[in-house]
Amino acid sequence: MVELRRITPVILSGGSGTRLWPLSRAGKPKQLLSLTQDETMLQLTARRTVDSDRFAAPIIVANARHAAMIAEQLAAVGAGGATVILEPAARNTAPAIALAALHAAPDALLLVMPSDHVIADVDAFLAAVDATAPVVEQGWLATFGITPDAPEIGYGYIRAGAEIAPGVRRVERFVEKPDRATAEAYLAEGCYAWNGGIFLFRADAYLAALDAHAPAIVAAARAAMAAARTDGNEIRPDAAAFALSPDDSVDYAVMERAERVVVAPVEMGWSDVGSWDALHDLADKDAAGNVHHGSVIAIDTSGCLIRSDGPVVAAVGVSDLIIIATKDAVLVLPRGSSQDVKRAIAALKRDGHVTLDH
Amino acid sequence: MVELRRITPVILSGGSGTRLWPLSRAGKPKQLLSLTQDETMLQLTARRTVDSDRFAAPIIVANARHAAMIAEQLAAVGAGGATVILEPAARNTAPAIALAALHAAPDALLLVMPSDHVIADVDAFLAAVDATAPVVEQGWLATFGITPDAPEIGYGYIRAGAEIAPGVRRVERFVEKPDRATAEAYLAEGCYAWNGGIFLFRADAYLAALDAHAPAIVAAARAAMAAARTDGNEIRPDAAAFALSPDDSVDYAVMERAERVVVAPVEMGWSDVGSWDALHDLADKDAAGNVHHGSVIAIDTSGCLIRSDGPVVAAVGVSDLIIIATKDAVLVLPRGSSQDVKRAIAALKRDGHVTLDH
Repeated sequence: MVELRRITPVILSGGSGTRLWPLSRAGKPKQLLSLTQDETMLQLTARRTVDSDRFAAPIIVANARHAAMIAEQLAAVGAGGATVILEPAARNTAPAIALAALHAAPDALLLVMPSDHVIADVDAFLAAVDATAPVVEQGWLATFGITPDAPEIGYGYIRAGAEIAPGVRRVERFVEKPDRATAEAYLAEGCYAWNGGIFLFRADAYLAALDAHAPAIVAAARAAMAAARTDGNEIRPDAAAFALSPDDSVDYAVMERAERVVVAPVEMGWSDVGSWDALHDLADKDAAGNVHHGSVIAIDTSGCLIRSDGPVVAAVGVSDLIIIATKDAVLVLPRGSSQDVKRAIAALKRDGHVTLDH
Repeated sequence: MVELRRITPVILSGGSGTRLWPLSRAGKPKQLLSLTQDETMLQLTARRTVDSDRFAAPIIVANARHAAMIAEQLAAVGAGGATVILEPAARNTAPAIALAALHAAPDALLLVMPSDHVIADVDAFLAAVDATAPVVEQGWLATFGITPDAPEIGYGYIRAGAEIAPGVRRVERFVEKPDRATAEAYLAEGCYAWNGGIFLFRADAYLAALDAHAPAIVAAARAAMAAARTDGNEIRPDAAAFALSPDDSVDYAVMERAERVVVAPVEMGWSDVGSWDALHDLADKDAAGNVHHGSVIAIDTSGCLIRSDGPVVAAVGVSDLIIIATKDAVLVLPRGSSQDVKRAIAALKRDGHVTLDH
């Protein structure tokens, strides 16, 4: 049996997602916002790992720009002992995890988690981690597969093969985001899971896989960590060295190429909170299906998500709208079409609007 | 023939309308906003009377709180020579006009106009003024009746009787805002006009009518003007004296009670811009029926009025919505229901929101 306290949570906070614009900005992205509860997504993620019987102190890999906010948010949930690796540039997840793996002990089990996902059933998640750890201990790379409940076209899928331990199956293949018909076929077939971006592997196994499949990434990460500056819990990898790393995801660089890869399918009330629609789905609603947050006057509304982090929003007689207001930007679109925020963002970029960034 | 240059425009700027909230506020109400064009409603109204062949310098009766904005706006349209009577308190239109009448020469013809109405066909308006002036010269009180083009239930109506001069008819009676069926009957009957709140009368005739029908108003106005402070073009009636005036409209206090009252029906592209819907109706629209103003990103929208005087507003895939944004408040409601802004305002009042006032 693996000694569970050797599991080191690695929380990836490098995203600057715009799918929740106008609330999410490069200067304060989704993971640093309070969306589903009073605590931020990062805080909720860190809190999941504040368990010294089970977990070592976490490693957060984050954008250097957010250092102060992150330190403050972690301290507020008793995770002030976390190591924070501050990326001098964004190079996607494969290099970010490499930095953490190089900092950790070689035999540490790294539980890699995005900082902005909801896991409603933490017990189910931890049970899957427990089931997967012995396999990972032997050098396998594990991904946690989200059991689909709908034919989603926004996620990559994993086809699970033979079970090699209870609840742990060999990955037969990763598949790209499917079209609708394919997604429906996957759902019907039953042996597919969504790729949720949550991983468990030994630090040395991950680095070995990088050496084999993405040597330029691990070389850049090694050089960056060798020349890193450390200040208390904060590690600042060398910028010039890290800048040489290719930009690639852990999925493409490692998981889809490595030999010994397993998937642990799990039902754990997972959501990547990847859109305003997803947030409406997750939230508690009033009798008319509304979700209101902040300074909102809503009269005769139904099925709406109305949120203000700035001006008072008064809505009368509207249905199935998403209305998000901040002090410098307001988004209005029909519920069910919140992916269209990217069209608004494209137009804002074209016009040079600063509301995308600060 | 009357000497037209004896006509003194009296522009009433005392309103603090909330029907165009959140743009219109007590601190900067509708008449001081640019709504239909780059110039404000007050500026457009004043500009109508900048014609020294036809008009004497106008008298503006306004809320003392707006003195600086009014002086600036008038100067910008070449009406800096206007007399501005700054009301120390709001007492409705009858006392406001009394102040102007007491300032004017007794035989001046006062052309009383709200400061926040649109008149698209100024030539038609001036022709009606010309037709009415000789009758008014003889002591009649005249109102300009807006020829109805729809069974509006939001206006009072005037039933016109016998013609006593070309285009000028005796008022048979004033009627309150009708219900729908009554409004339709009025429209079908053809001898009704909307009461648009635009008047022409001699100063002495108006004061005599006030003496007869509302003596407390004229007494308070006389006392307030007798003790007024004058500073350049600005007249500040005495606050304590004016506070004693009853609060009443010119319609109720005078027009509906006086004996010799005429109406000049006129088609002049009039609108009181009394709602966001009215503003959408008035404005130039794009091919999809949208009216956009300010910092607005609109994609796949149709039939919308979207206006921002503050944050950028991004709307995608919405139809027939009114979206009005300012730096501290956002209003969203379906087009056609903009009267519901009053329900939002009632809720805001209940919650003590400051966005109603400043």
